[in-house]
Amino acid sequence: MAYDPPSDVMIYDTTLRDGEQTPGVTITTDEKIVVADKLDKLGVDVIELGFPAASPGEQKTFKEAAKIGFNAQISGLARALPVDIDKAIDSDADYIHTFIGTSPLHRDYKLKMTKEQILEKAVTAVEYIKDHGITAEFSCEDATRTELDYLKEVFGAVQEAKVDKINVPDTVGVTIPIKMNQLISDLREVITVPISVHCHNDFGLAVANSLAAIEAGAKQAQCTINGLGERAGNASLEEIVMTLKKVYGINTNINTELLYNTSETVSRISGVKMPPNKAIIGENAFAHEAGIHVQGVLANSDTYEAFKPEEVGHKRRIVLGKLTGANAIKSKLDEYNINLDEEQFDQLFTKVKALGDSGKTITDVDFRSLAESIQGKPTEERIKLLGISVMTGDNTLPTASVKLEINDEIKSCAQIGVGPVDAALTAIQSLIKEVVDIKLEEYHIEAITGGTNALGEVIVKTVDEEGNKVTGRSTDEDIVKASVDAIISSVNKLLMLRD
Amino acid sequence: MAYDPPSDVMIYDTTLRDGEQTPGVTITTDEKIVVADKLDKLGVDVIELGFPAASPGEQKTFKEAAKIGFNAQISGLARALPVDIDKAIDSDADYIHTFIGTSPLHRDYKLKMTKEQILEKAVTAVEYIKDHGITAEFSCEDATRTELDYLKEVFGAVQEAKVDKINVPDTVGVTIPIKMNQLISDLREVITVPISVHCHNDFGLAVANSLAAIEAGAKQAQCTINGLGERAGNASLEEIVMTLKKVYGINTNINTELLYNTSETVSRISGVKMPPNKAIIGENAFAHEAGIHVQGVLANSDTYEAFKPEEVGHKRRIVLGKLTGANAIKSKLDEYNINLDEEQFDQLFTKVKALGDSGKTITDVDFRSLAESIQGKPTEERIKLLGISVMTGDNTLPTASVKLEINDEIKSCAQIGVGPVDAALTAIQSLIKEVVDIKLEEYHIEAITGGTNALGEVIVKTVDEEGNKVTGRSTDEDIVKASVDAIISSVNKLLMLRD
Repeated sequence: MAYDPPSDVMIYDTTLRDGEQTPGVTITTDEKIVVADKLDKLGVDVIELGFPAASPGEQKTFKEAAKIGFNAQISGLARALPVDIDKAIDSDADYIHTFIGTSPLHRDYKLKMTKEQILEKAVTAVEYIKDHGITAEFSCEDATRTELDYLKEVFGAVQEAKVDKINVPDTVGVTIPIKMNQLISDLREVITVPISVHCHNDFGLAVANSLAAIEAGAKQAQCTINGLGERAGNASLEEIVMTLKKVYGINTNINTELLYNTSETVSRISGVKMPPNKAIIGENAFAHEAGIHVQGVLANSDTYEAFKPEEVGHKRRIVLGKLTGANAIKSKLDEYNINLDEEQFDQLFTKVKALGDSGKTITDVDFRSLAESIQGKPTEERIKLLGISVMTGDNTLPTASVKLEINDEIKSCAQIGVGPVDAALTAIQSLIKEVVDIKLEEYHIEAITGGTNALGEVIVKTVDEEGNKVTGRSTDEDIVKASVDAIISSVNKLLMLRD
Repeated sequence: MAYDPPSDVMIYDTTLRDGEQTPGVTITTDEKIVVADKLDKLGVDVIELGFPAASPGEQKTFKEAAKIGFNAQISGLARALPVDIDKAIDSDADYIHTFIGTSPLHRDYKLKMTKEQILEKAVTAVEYIKDHGITAEFSCEDATRTELDYLKEVFGAVQEAKVDKINVPDTVGVTIPIKMNQLISDLREVITVPISVHCHNDFGLAVANSLAAIEAGAKQAQCTINGLGERAGNASLEEIVMTLKKVYGINTNINTELLYNTSETVSRISGVKMPPNKAIIGENAFAHEAGIHVQGVLANSDTYEAFKPEEVGHKRRIVLGKLTGANAIKSKLDEYNINLDEEQFDQLFTKVKALGDSGKTITDVDFRSLAESIQGKPTEERIKLLGISVMTGDNTLPTASVKLEINDEIKSCAQIGVGPVDAALTAIQSLIKEVVDIKLEEYHIEAITGGTNALGEVIVKTVDEEGNKVTGRSTDEDIVKASVDAIISSVNKLLMLRD
């Protein structure tokens, strides 16, 4: 395999174009501007903002971006057709990425055009863009399934037409690293302008194929945050950038400490949540549960980490469960300043293992209350729910009446809210405010699927005036009851912490 | 790079061991047996069922599996210590995977042992397993960061001790394909027993590194369903198997049509949901939205698909949104047998684009009612909600009273249920049952995060006695009201379909 990588690689981000083509994802103009701003601060060289010819909304987005004036170049996708290119020019794009399919499948089934016709369209499109003084990047769509001679012919012709970069898309994600490396080496025989790659992840090889192209001398990678994109998505920007930095020692302009935050923003705006085991930015990317691993990481984090989480703005987490070893428990006890004797420690260790075996996840608050109860601090229910009733309806103000026992005193009241849960929370808050002033920082209903009689799980995070935070959770067929129980349980945990 | 792959590759599945080490994931004995059964039917060669020394629950799981008698070999992980190996033997494992760290980091920080001590532990462990007549696989943990000479020495010594397979773990996921390929080639100079690889995904390269090892002659891949595992996870079984099959033409014993179903089971039991852009088994792996792509796929699915979804038990989806082209709309109209004239078609096209631009996802039912309303079938509200009130509480039977206008007639009633939404549904069902007999097939509350006054979105799927299915959705600050509105909206859509 060829090994002649450049010292610097340009990052062409297509989160807002190919990423937006993720089926089911639509990103509005305002949201695109928010993401573009993050990408600009992240340091990408080019932002592919969209496909101007697709809709009037897309054109508006480009004009907004032009007004703002980002550091990154703002690129628009266009088929190799004057009508598409005109839309991009009219939208004030300062960079146009034009393409046409070149593989036999695309020629015969999609375009129904001959090799000669396609070549002519490609050259005409590039000339048209360059006549307007705009930067032009050209892609042979489905390049990895195109005959090599014809591919060289088309790329060579657009190079003659003064294209600024050529891009080699593995449109259907079917190539493998050794083939991609060879393809780029072959193209370098005729191409002198910078070569870019654009890889899809249909077999899970988008990042590896992009890196194989860079090894052969490609100078730019097209990629997306979180690997969003058509079907299985594109090469993931964060994975390419971090491998180049940590394994190859190749530079990009990316401020890697912003990767985690940028990924979160894209996740929220696109609605596509990354799984915990996503490389670099997943919630588990730097989390450790098994005893063997925790022991190693506590001695030296390099034993089980490729690099430190801070380099990408992420955090290390030690998680407790059935595979937890004594070291993890000791480190948690130190963190919370809890001293246990040997017998108490063994008791805690056994309980953590048993909870884990039964399939439970042990949160930090669970762990702390478990340890403290073994230490002799019983979890007491200082606040008890004696009664609750709620009413709501379309001509009824959502109302809740609550009766609580607070430190052995019985109190009750009624309150209204925007819905029944909101009313109940307000009633509870007003009854307990002399003991503790709580705010609900987070209210989360786990997605329920099933009938209306399925169990709903509510998780709340409450915070008191001193900034103490606890979570409470409860499960019930009645979502209102589950919410109230979760709130009461979190308040009791809060009171225990404050003692 | 070396290219000397075997004609057949063995699949060693570690979903239930390394996959279970996914922080936050715990799989009970019963659940492990369900997954093991799926893996056995899928055709994996070895199932690593767990780590017997970790907990009594793990030992119980192995005994259960031994009683059942799967076709696959059942392997247990064990540190290179007699205490761990004894636990695996006592649990009736018929295959033991033992390991010890060999890299400088593991020697100095975790094990605090010399090279000689480690070598001796490794050999003793393998001899101990073989003395019991059990299949032994041996791993040098962190092999990719171990000095090559020492690695060859350790692997050579366990080979002398009659190990059955050696495994090369990239424990921290730091290698790249060219290096992995070279490493396997180097090891083949001294190793004649089958070589296995075990790659982690910290840089997103686990699958590519596994394939590079196979190119160099490795005969087995350790991998997991959905790529579960420590931190960013392991190499994904489905991606390795499908690339071997479709790109390399290398065989495995996997029944690929069961991949999607197996992945779903693992997702459900582990609680780790895969994102839509997961390769091979993600919801979007064979979904198409953009106009250009839909046009190609409708002409010949190979234009934008690496292989047919049926090969992995998956399905193709055409999704509508702002990037939808005329071809997708035509194909959907054909599917529903709706004929529109040119003007009507243009009207529909504009509406779909406008809905997409505003960030909406357009479901099949939305599309159908949109098309039919343009065709001249107005969506009429045959059932109108005139009034609703609900009560619930801990000493109150959840009760709902509902007043509806049904075909211009006013009816009302009260019903009880397990919660307020269930009571409301029962009341609505009893009022409308003369017009239509509906059942709620699915009730889904989108996860709500925010305060108790955040908007909740409810999506219901109702089915009538003829089997017609529609979805209804509604958003409100009051989750009870949102549920009722969603049900009423779905019933009106159902009645429209039946006209």
